[in-house]
Amino acid sequence: MEYHSKLLSRLVGEISKLPGIGERTALRLALHLLKQPQSQSLQLAKALTDFRTQIKHCRICYNISDTDTCSICANPMRDHQTICVVETVRDVMAVENTGQFNGVYHVLGGVISPMEGISPNDLFIQPLIERIQREHPNEVIFALSPTVEGDTTGYYIYKEIKDLDIKISTIARGVSFGEEIEYADEMTLARSIENRIPFDQSLKF
Amino acid sequence: MEYHSKLLSRLVGEISKLPGIGERTALRLALHLLKQPQSQSLQLAKALTDFRTQIKHCRICYNISDTDTCSICANPMRDHQTICVVETVRDVMAVENTGQFNGVYHVLGGVISPMEGISPNDLFIQPLIERIQREHPNEVIFALSPTVEGDTTGYYIYKEIKDLDIKISTIARGVSFGEEIEYADEMTLARSIENRIPFDQSLKF
Repeated sequence: MEYHSKLLSRLVGEISKLPGIGERTALRLALHLLKQPQSQSLQLAKALTDFRTQIKHCRICYNISDTDTCSICANPMRDHQTICVVETVRDVMAVENTGQFNGVYHVLGGVISPMEGISPNDLFIQPLIERIQREHPNEVIFALSPTVEGDTTGYYIYKEIKDLDIKISTIARGVSFGEEIEYADEMTLARSIENRIPFDQSLKF
Repeated sequence: MEYHSKLLSRLVGEISKLPGIGERTALRLALHLLKQPQSQSLQLAKALTDFRTQIKHCRICYNISDTDTCSICANPMRDHQTICVVETVRDVMAVENTGQFNGVYHVLGGVISPMEGISPNDLFIQPLIERIQREHPNEVIFALSPTVEGDTTGYYIYKEIKDLDIKISTIARGVSFGEEIEYADEMTLARSIENRIPFDQSLKF
């Protein structure tokens, strides 16, 4: 499509780089913003810039955070003896939303996947192992995707910490194979945290 | 949903103000941007800011433009004796895309709609009438939505210019009642420009 305006063309180009947004939707969003007060666009642009330049990873759990230590890790009311290992920031939110978990998290940033070229070194696995060795928590709960990659990742970590006399569990497989954690409904996710089982009992290798 | 990050929460809030984008999609987009190079977010923010602060309305046709006069109105190769009257900027693009029209445009900014409280004074109708009186073009073509509001708007303008000895036509009604101009396929839209008929012949009052 031709736009007769470089400003519009550039904005549509940038918006349609976002996943799931095609050129027509991008155009609609751009022209929608033109009808709204200028402040709305400027606030969006500022929120975007601030987010992308100021957001940090928590130095303890690698969740995204406004501060060096995230509000969960800095909260003395949370159970720092129970570490829930998840893949992504969205998974932290999904578990938090169940209201069933009062421990702390560790965000790996993904799962080991030779197919996609993701090795343990591409993830925050080594910091997790060092954290467990240092803090020696009571329990480590794996809340990873119920896929081969999720299992592989859990097993990789399990091997490194299994001799430390720490309870290692995994959330109950209430979710079907291949489904993503963040889309499980809250009841299923809450129950799967409740019914966690020892990690070595869950292995399907 | 709770975010544990004001920066994220603010960005998700701003993104979900956009039409058709819910909170979950907004979150997905925000976290997607976090995985992309920082430059992508900054370019998007800049494109948004530049667009919203620098874009102008063409002083002749009221299409959006980077300059005081848009590239269509400034183009001496276009037929300035034929003015196509449309509702929105998107309609200009839709007609341009057919490649069937070499005239110029006038963007009204909408249609008269007492139901939605849009009166002629809320639209660029007066500037159109003055433009027609001043330029005395050969032909005015209405490419307005085939709805009661579109017909009303056309008729309002028709009344003001019918004594000026100008050919006044409307695009053929190949599109079904209630359909929007911008979603008509190019063939239908092209044919409807080809088969335009005198405006007073098209009235259904």
